[in-house]
Amino acid sequence: MTRVRVDLNISLDGFATTTDQTPEKPFGEDWGRLTDAYVSTRTFRSRVLGDTSGAGTTGVDDDFASRYFDEIGAEIMGAAMFGLHANADDPDWRGWWGDEPPFRCPVFVLSHTPREPIPMKGGTTFHFIDADAQDALNTAVAAADGGDVRIGGGPTTVRQFLRAGLVDELHVAIAPILLGRGIRLWDDLRGFEEGYRATSVSAPSGTTHLTFSR
Amino acid sequence: MTRVRVDLNISLDGFATTTDQTPEKPFGEDWGRLTDAYVSTRTFRSRVLGDTSGAGTTGVDDDFASRYFDEIGAEIMGAAMFGLHANADDPDWRGWWGDEPPFRCPVFVLSHTPREPIPMKGGTTFHFIDADAQDALNTAVAAADGGDVRIGGGPTTVRQFLRAGLVDELHVAIAPILLGRGIRLWDDLRGFEEGYRATSVSAPSGTTHLTFSR
Ligand SMILES: NC(=O)c1ccc[n+]([C@@H]2O[C@H](COP(=O)([O-])OP(=O)(O)OC[C@H]3O[C@@H](n4cnc5c(N)ncnc54)[C@H](OP(=O)(O)O)[C@@H]3O)[C@@H](O)[C@H]2O)c1
Ligand SMILES: NC(=O)c1ccc[n+]([C@@H]2O[C@H](COP(=O)([O-])OP(=O)(O)OC[C@H]3O[C@@H](n4cnc5c(N)ncnc54)[C@H](OP(=O)(O)O)[C@@H]3O)[C@@H](O)[C@H]2O)c1
Repeated sequence: MTRVRVDLNISLDGFATTTDQTPEKPFGEDWGRLTDAYVSTRTFRSRVLGDTSGAGTTGVDDDFASRYFDEIGAEIMGAAMFGLHANADDPDWRGWWGDEPPFRCPVFVLSHTPREPIPMKGGTTFHFIDADAQDALNTAVAAADGGDVRIGGGPTTVRQFLRAGLVDELHVAIAPILLGRGIRLWDDLRGFEEGYRATSVSAPSGTTHLTFSR
Repeated sequence: MTRVRVDLNISLDGFATTTDQTPEKPFGEDWGRLTDAYVSTRTFRSRVLGDTSGAGTTGVDDDFASRYFDEIGAEIMGAAMFGLHANADDPDWRGWWGDEPPFRCPVFVLSHTPREPIPMKGGTTFHFIDADAQDALNTAVAAADGGDVRIGGGPTTVRQFLRAGLVDELHVAIAPILLGRGIRLWDDLRGFEEGYRATSVSAPSGTTHLTFSR
């Protein structure tokens, strides 16, 4: 059975985006602190950075990082996460992930101004669709061919799926930092926990991995 | 050395107060869900409820509950936590905790309309003071006689001490629920974590115990 999954890195005060980008540091210091435990893992280093040396942390954080990629048959993401907002004037923008993105499956980018699909190396194809959460999910489930569907982010997109009750598993890696500004994951989700089982695991990095699943 | 400590129960979305009180249920369902893991502990049952049967949970949640009362020589709380706001027209209000409150030390209630001190059974005396965070703390440290000072709550009061850099140890028990409304603990605390060590422990109840200490 296809499960709909979300994995996000958030701060203790619930922010899933950062705000300290500059032209010199396009991701900002905060992004580094928010995702530090994740990008330090062996899984991230090999799967996303292509580092085959075996470097990187193992243990709790790496276990979750590795689950992140398991069994995913299709991904849905928002236009901002793909980079359409930051690169609006570049008609040839192909995402942040280089020629061979780590997804290796169809990726559906939600956008009010869809473009032609972009096939990439390694199994990823970016499709652009203008659809509500349920319709987008139907499309992704069909494309996933029995695999799971991940709602990749950002928070604006993820919240639509959470609010519509479409998510089977929500994993957040909570960094012990207070960002104080950005887009909150948790807004308008009062009572979300009903019908889910919550489990929580702490990693030596200080990260708390909280999972709601049903 | 006196340490200044905070222990609060908060929801995953950062709320430290509840909003569903009714005349029939003066604490509301949300308060029960927010504090469930804490009030179920053996320590809470014996120390706060006076239940000498030995009932209650043991383990991670109880370890933190028991630390809550250790070594505290004085407490500071806000007028709302003491109940002055909800009982503004009762000049004889003596707090929510019965004749023998669990504090067993001097308690300084911050208020813009101070009253006469109220000595209670078991070592607790409620003093009412109109002071900023630093002055209130100086008063409490002197009264604590070498013991620690706890800033008991609510969030409006606690945030003043956090923002002023006066807190040595902040422990939050994070319940895996989303309240969606109330007073947030974390507002305006960007960068609070600097200078603190963060540790996180998960309890089987689903509660995450996060501690910042310096
Ligand atoms: N913390 C994490 O783990 C994590 C993970 C992923 C991303 N991020 C961060 O999240 C940020 C982006 O998040 P975000 O919340 O600002 O935006 P987002 O969710 O990535 O994208 C939102 C945009 O997608 C389009 N869209 C969303 N739903 C749609 C629908 N149903 N139909 C049509 N179009 C739709 C709209 O763009 P248009 O109207 O322009 O078409 C909307 O403005 C990035 O900074 C990224 O770094 C964080
Ligand atoms: N989650 C938890 O673990 C926890 C723990 C404790 C309490 N609580 C909850 O917190 C709620 C109350 O919190 P709250 O944030 O609304 O209020 P609070 O912090 O308890 O009280 C705030 C009030 O205290 C007085 N005050 C605060 N600082 C002062 C200062 N420097 N000088 C003079 N007066 C000062 C002011 O009252 P006046 O202007 O009226 O004098 C102010 O409105 C309650 O519902 C309680 O259940 C939760």
